Amino acid sequence: MNKKLILKKRPVGLPDEDTWQLITEDIPSAGEGEVVIKNHYISLDPAMRGWINDVKSYIPPVQIDEVMRAGSIGVVIDSKHDEYKEGDILTGWGGVQQYYTTKGEGHYKVDTTHVPMTKYIAALGMPGMTAYFGILDVGRIKEGETVLISGAAGAVGSVAGQIAKIKGCHVIGIAGGPDKCGYVTNTLGFDACIDYKNENIYKAIKNHCPKGIDVFFDNVGGETLDAALAALRKHGRIALCGAISQYNATDVYAPKNYLSLLVNSATLQGFIVLDYAHKYKEAAMQMGMWMMEGKLKTEEDIYEGIENFHETFLRLFSGDKRGKLVLNILEQ
Amino acid sequence: MNKKLILKKRPVGLPDEDTWQLITEDIPSAGEGEVVIKNHYISLDPAMRGWINDVKSYIPPVQIDEVMRAGSIGVVIDSKHDEYKEGDILTGWGGVQQYYTTKGEGHYKVDTTHVPMTKYIAALGMPGMTAYFGILDVGRIKEGETVLISGAAGAVGSVAGQIAKIKGCHVIGIAGGPDKCGYVTNTLGFDACIDYKNENIYKAIKNHCPKGIDVFFDNVGGETLDAALAALRKHGRIALCGAISQYNATDVYAPKNYLSLLVNSATLQGFIVLDYAHKYKEAAMQMGMWMMEGKLKTEEDIYEGIENFHETFLRLFSGDKRGKLVLNILEQ
Repeated sequence: MNKKLILKKRPVGLPDEDTWQLITEDIPSAGEGEVVIKNHYISLDPAMRGWINDVKSYIPPVQIDEVMRAGSIGVVIDSKHDEYKEGDILTGWGGVQQYYTTKGEGHYKVDTTHVPMTKYIAALGMPGMTAYFGILDVGRIKEGETVLISGAAGAVGSVAGQIAKIKGCHVIGIAGGPDKCGYVTNTLGFDACIDYKNENIYKAIKNHCPKGIDVFFDNVGGETLDAALAALRKHGRIALCGAISQYNATDVYAPKNYLSLLVNSATLQGFIVLDYAHKYKEAAMQMGMWMMEGKLKTEEDIYEGIENFHETFLRLFSGDKRGKLVLNILEQ
Repeated sequence: MNKKLILKKRPVGLPDEDTWQLITEDIPSAGEGEVVIKNHYISLDPAMRGWINDVKSYIPPVQIDEVMRAGSIGVVIDSKHDEYKEGDILTGWGGVQQYYTTKGEGHYKVDTTHVPMTKYIAALGMPGMTAYFGILDVGRIKEGETVLISGAAGAVGSVAGQIAKIKGCHVIGIAGGPDKCGYVTNTLGFDACIDYKNENIYKAIKNHCPKGIDVFFDNVGGETLDAALAALRKHGRIALCGAISQYNATDVYAPKNYLSLLVNSATLQGFIVLDYAHKYKEAAMQMGMWMMEGKLKTEEDIYEGIENFHETFLRLFSGDKRGKLVLNILEQ
């Protein structure tokens, strides 16, 4: 049988268990031009919180009674498709379900001979692409600049900061707790990491970036963004990647220090990784190269069982995870 | 004798009369390499409010007991300078004083044969330059785009909107009251103007820009900025020129809708006209051409008497003026 998670109601604030419902159906079969995919791993990302709000955004919201949207990777188990055959590994928008059919739109085939499957929904998938284009194209980092990264131990921030190191920047992370901060400096090689749970973030930024910040890559929003705005240098750039502190907020924390952009001729720029789809291949090749050279370290935090979707999803917001959050939804 | 206005204390909120003091001194004489300038007109600009706060900004704050900083234009009445001679008209940072000496730094000579003096501290001076580089270089307007301008009847907004019209954009202004709105549409030729004093700004923007805004040129901040953020189109740009609604605020209105930048891959970019000093000449030539061709209409609202600086300055914030606010400080 096929277990799938459907959206049952729109949450206000942090989603509770009633937000989704796990249902069971027959395993679908392939129509003409289709494949059946058995989903192994799904990607859990902060952006998913936005997809279940009923508001106009960069993609349509998930509808009530629809399968919850998620990036995923799985194996073709049946094919009436010209290009894909049984055994092929495909990644795409498979959703939180164990089996599904697709004509292949938005999917592509990957080679898992030397690279574990999970990397394709992590550093070589959306989170990695987000980091790559956000830090290089939006942040426009230059050698010698001071770069601040929030969510530094997360799937995107950890990669963005390492790319900034590769490019010769002075890189400061922000993460929650001594364990994550240790990971950010010792394993990922950032120059320093601010523990926002135990430090005053304004003072800590001043301390680590005495001349101010050239580029801020923001995954967090809220007071973190305000503190970074206050420390921006002339012609500073903020790559607005996410605002995880605000996704469940019923009352948004608005950035009081936004006029720092004016007096510093600085830029706050939002971006969506989907805008860069035409360049994913180039980025994935470069990232793969850095991984092989040992310059880019990535980690997946893998949980088990489609039944545990809700509690695993909440780890995105509690911060109780490290690196890329992944759920293995294969039946054990 | 020489009347000069000095800063006496730093205001909290809207400056009161005790902020400045008018003092009288002897008229200075020219030292070696200097000229004495008799100041005719000074420019009154919202940015002046920021210059009297004791905070780090793009230029140092005016110090207590220093002459109040202001752009100005006047006549050389004595010269020991190689380049400038008696009778030359110079514009520069003369400050709120009737006479001063300078070696000429930050000053340049202008020709008033065909152009009234006041234009050189208005459309052909800082406000005009601000509009020109803000709308073209920061806003990066393209033909056919929808452009929204706040402070549309003001010195900068009126010029920015007309440039957008010249470049083939659909241009909507925002101004206070039916008189100003009539001026913006009838005289300046904007396609429409929203009266923020009598209309709901969110609804009015939706009404006039049904497909959303490509470029917002913001002089106002506060709720106006929030309403524009809510209506931004994909890849929208906001040229953050000023925030006159916030300059006297003791509690800043922060933009709640800033995450619109994220979902729309949009940009909020501050700028300072001083960054473009190397291109002023090119811009002034282009603006002068448009003025001669009748494509660019500009207006100065001129008040009289250095004694009336304080009450005239307050017109910037009450909105009780139209076009560029200028004070004639020549003794009558």
